Amino acid sequence: MTDSLQKALAHVARQVDGVLQTVLPVEAGPEGRLFAAMRYATLAGGKRLRPLLVVASGDLFKVPGEHSIRVAAAVELVHTCSLVHDDLPAMDDDDLRRGQPTVHRKYDEATAILAGDALLTLAFEVLAAPATHPNAELRIELVRALAVAAGAHGMVAGQAIDLAAATLGLDTGGVTRLQLLKTGALIAFCCEAGGILGHATVAQRHALKAYAHDLGLAFQIADDLLDIEGDAAELGKAVKKDAAAGKTTLVGLMGVEQARRQARLLATQAAAHLDLFGAKAALLRDLTEFAISRRS
Amino acid sequence: MTDSLQKALAHVARQVDGVLQTVLPVEAGPEGRLFAAMRYATLAGGKRLRPLLVVASGDLFKVPGEHSIRVAAAVELVHTCSLVHDDLPAMDDDDLRRGQPTVHRKYDEATAILAGDALLTLAFEVLAAPATHPNAELRIELVRALAVAAGAHGMVAGQAIDLAAATLGLDTGGVTRLQLLKTGALIAFCCEAGGILGHATVAQRHALKAYAHDLGLAFQIADDLLDIEGDAAELGKAVKKDAAAGKTTLVGLMGVEQARRQARLLATQAAAHLDLFGAKAALLRDLTEFAISRRS
Repeated sequence: MTDSLQKALAHVARQVDGVLQTVLPVEAGPEGRLFAAMRYATLAGGKRLRPLLVVASGDLFKVPGEHSIRVAAAVELVHTCSLVHDDLPAMDDDDLRRGQPTVHRKYDEATAILAGDALLTLAFEVLAAPATHPNAELRIELVRALAVAAGAHGMVAGQAIDLAAATLGLDTGGVTRLQLLKTGALIAFCCEAGGILGHATVAQRHALKAYAHDLGLAFQIADDLLDIEGDAAELGKAVKKDAAAGKTTLVGLMGVEQARRQARLLATQAAAHLDLFGAKAALLRDLTEFAISRRS
Repeated sequence: MTDSLQKALAHVARQVDGVLQTVLPVEAGPEGRLFAAMRYATLAGGKRLRPLLVVASGDLFKVPGEHSIRVAAAVELVHTCSLVHDDLPAMDDDDLRRGQPTVHRKYDEATAILAGDALLTLAFEVLAAPATHPNAELRIELVRALAVAAGAHGMVAGQAIDLAAATLGLDTGGVTRLQLLKTGALIAFCCEAGGILGHATVAQRHALKAYAHDLGLAFQIADDLLDIEGDAAELGKAVKKDAAAGKTTLVGLMGVEQARRQARLLATQAAAHLDLFGAKAALLRDLTEFAISRRS
């Protein structure tokens, strides 16, 4: 990871955690457990890659940080919802996440289901608040784009297909589509949001979309490789889960060597889409390299 | 039920089902099962009371039907999400809903979790679309109000408290608060939405809020009474679940006779809040009577 990327990630993580702390207060009373579970899931310290994508995309258009960081927080809330629900016994049945017990292990299944629902709802509340941007037209565009990215034609569809993947017998095209939905849709929203906040031109929006498309796939292949070759302690979660679950992955279809080449190709291609932004896109460019070289 | 209420319910049900059919298409491909589950849950024919509340509140201000019906559809999507998730084994563990297998029994738990997430997300997508209202300021106000009503300070908080109710030892005040959150918040949003769409005055908004407050509680007490005295076949779901789960209800705290008096008092009071709307509020007034006299 480049120094500037590391610094930017740390900075964005601090900023986004500040917003998340504000919108997720400690609550007393009988609903205290629900809020505790929401805070536990959200403030456990993920890498905050999606928030960085929102902020770095916004920076291309000089979007004020106080606007992009709230959109970044909304994305992280949706992402956290998907992790909490994905970890449930009826879904991936995971006990560990980032080295800590998953929400349903730390609390209970019912609380985990409700915490996910509440985090998803909160994301839209955050976007809708005037603090996110004074222009209502722009806020409603963000709400709509996030709903499309997160819902049954986006992330949730990807999760549904992923659950069935073991029995579907997907080919490379099918698995690519799965990944574009499951992780790609929200990553694409991050870059789209920067463009929305920054009143980007059509050409600029297309470039960001193409970048997000390739970056998302590169990330996913790197994730699959880590599941095969990674270290459980370093990752903070179980490894070799895909094979155990009989899931078809791109790495499984292509083999490790070809998958590694494919990830490299996608990262290079992602960076190329940023050419029209010139030097301003340095951070987004650094992310393409990080996507395929990370160890966790 | 009055004739005009019965007619209005049937009309609104047809209209809202039309919108729901449009936003919930049959999908082919590996995500077909997810969409089938979403359609199964949503189009199974509930009473559509919440949609009627939105439309009848909007009618007070001559809100065009094509606007209020989309908000009504969004409310029904959120309501359906809550039913699907509430029925899960980790929550209320119900096998039947409206006389049919619950979503996780008809499909599977994972699909039920994801279908709920997708329905919740779709509600915000529907509200955010320009078809709901040409004015973005107004649409974003609706998004924000629905998120507040549905989330961790509203409906989901109520569900969380309800799950813990057996062990919390709630008194009348505690149970009332639970019910105001669990069912009252979304009912209040229905009336609030009519006011938002209709540019209601502050006094009119207060009246609608007070009406919804009392109507929601009256409905809930009637629900609790039906759980004790109702017929499982007529209701299409299991009865005497509250007692079996050791849940504290207002009926349990007050006794059947006092609870019946309380429901009647709340219904009368709810109707009184509508005085400033005069004859225009006939349908909303009819609903207060229906709330406490229904058999299912």
